[in-house]
Amino acid sequence: MIIVKIGGGSGINIRGAIEDLAALEDKFVIVHGANALRDKLAEDLGRPKQVLTSAKGYTSVYSDENLLDVMMMAYAGLRNKRIVEMCHQMGINAVGLSGLDGKVVQGRRNKGIRVHRDGKTKIVRDYSGKPKAVNKPFLDLLLDNGYIPVLTVPIIDEQNAAINTENDDVVRVLQASLKADTVINLIEAPGFLEDKEDETSVIAEIPASQLEAREEQVDGRMKRKMLAVRKLFEHGATRVIIADGRIEHPVADALAGKGTIIQ
Amino acid sequence: MIIVKIGGGSGINIRGAIEDLAALEDKFVIVHGANALRDKLAEDLGRPKQVLTSAKGYTSVYSDENLLDVMMMAYAGLRNKRIVEMCHQMGINAVGLSGLDGKVVQGRRNKGIRVHRDGKTKIVRDYSGKPKAVNKPFLDLLLDNGYIPVLTVPIIDEQNAAINTENDDVVRVLQASLKADTVINLIEAPGFLEDKEDETSVIAEIPASQLEAREEQVDGRMKRKMLAVRKLFEHGATRVIIADGRIEHPVADALAGKGTIIQ
Repeated sequence: MIIVKIGGGSGINIRGAIEDLAALEDKFVIVHGANALRDKLAEDLGRPKQVLTSAKGYTSVYSDENLLDVMMMAYAGLRNKRIVEMCHQMGINAVGLSGLDGKVVQGRRNKGIRVHRDGKTKIVRDYSGKPKAVNKPFLDLLLDNGYIPVLTVPIIDEQNAAINTENDDVVRVLQASLKADTVINLIEAPGFLEDKEDETSVIAEIPASQLEAREEQVDGRMKRKMLAVRKLFEHGATRVIIADGRIEHPVADALAGKGTIIQ
Repeated sequence: MIIVKIGGGSGINIRGAIEDLAALEDKFVIVHGANALRDKLAEDLGRPKQVLTSAKGYTSVYSDENLLDVMMMAYAGLRNKRIVEMCHQMGINAVGLSGLDGKVVQGRRNKGIRVHRDGKTKIVRDYSGKPKAVNKPFLDLLLDNGYIPVLTVPIIDEQNAAINTENDDVVRVLQASLKADTVINLIEAPGFLEDKEDETSVIAEIPASQLEAREEQVDGRMKRKMLAVRKLFEHGATRVIIADGRIEHPVADALAGKGTIIQ
């Protein structure tokens, strides 16, 4: 079993990744993002995302109903269905699902963020949260009958409401349940870089034991990504490959040893 | 088995329909539209639909890639996922699917339309077509395991491309396969009206044998709808109910005898 996370950056060669997957003998599950597409759609609709600043100074996207609507359009609608279409064109019998469908990815909604507003401290609660479990019987039902799940956000919370979450966290709960041999994470870089300004500085191998140290070395999205990778090992991952999603054969090259292999 | 078609008009009480369905003992499948939502989205994005006029003078929507993108966002994305969310909130274990997913609704792409352009006659081919079959094993797999399919366009053609089609035609191929006892069609009117200007002129019952005559009586969308109903009887329907989707209990009232019953 392989889990492939297709990042939501605009530079990812989705068609190439699917072409590679079609040639594999292993079973696999796809998890995909649509970041760039969502931001473009929100902008085109004149509904830019709002950012909350917590009382402690941390910023986060404010996932109100409007943002969830846009996510449903970009992730579960356009991107998911075009990926499913490509899959069928390459002979992969794909079924596209948001976490809501058959409650396939279940999460817990965040309690809220403490913010200062108009001189007062208030708790603002949005539709965001963390995935906690997957509906494994449903995934097995699909996989055992020859259907390949293509998963994306939003997911469903304990009150059956749609919530936003990180696809990297979806991969984590999926791994906890499916125990894939290999998790491939396709990003817009050639792998984990020793120097983020230098694309030739890819580190070919990172022992899982060094992940915490590597996390200290980076910041922003990459730091979050490395934390997500570290958690994968807590859930029994044996091999995680961070690989370039922009090249002609993103998956085939990753499996052939390009990118950063963590084990 | 009941098939419920939830029309895509902005006045349909979707929540009420789902609440009613949650109380039923029968199995059911939902097919839904998102017409009004799609038009609004296309307008907000500044991508209004284009209309083709054939050499014979008929008009039709030009379903180019851009229109399909907008459909994926409105039908398979926002509307489908919000319906699935509502279903779970009412205790219905819903799985939202476009016709692409697991190739659940398979069609044939139209050959093209002959148009006059710049003084020449040309064939213009878009991404539209007619549904021909459903993936019954997949629907049975879901239904037999307690999952309720919530279906919408686009569907998949013989080359595995996404194509636009009428949801009424999707209901027809679904009925040909599932042989539902009852098909409920929720629209923005109290049923089939003797006088379309008079909402009190609902015809309570139409024998299936009189459908052709009733078709002659109306025009526009209602004519197309009545043709679709007539075809349902060719596929073994025993009862079709055209009912008001705007009221508090659209499905419960339809089953209790409100609207127009055709049998």
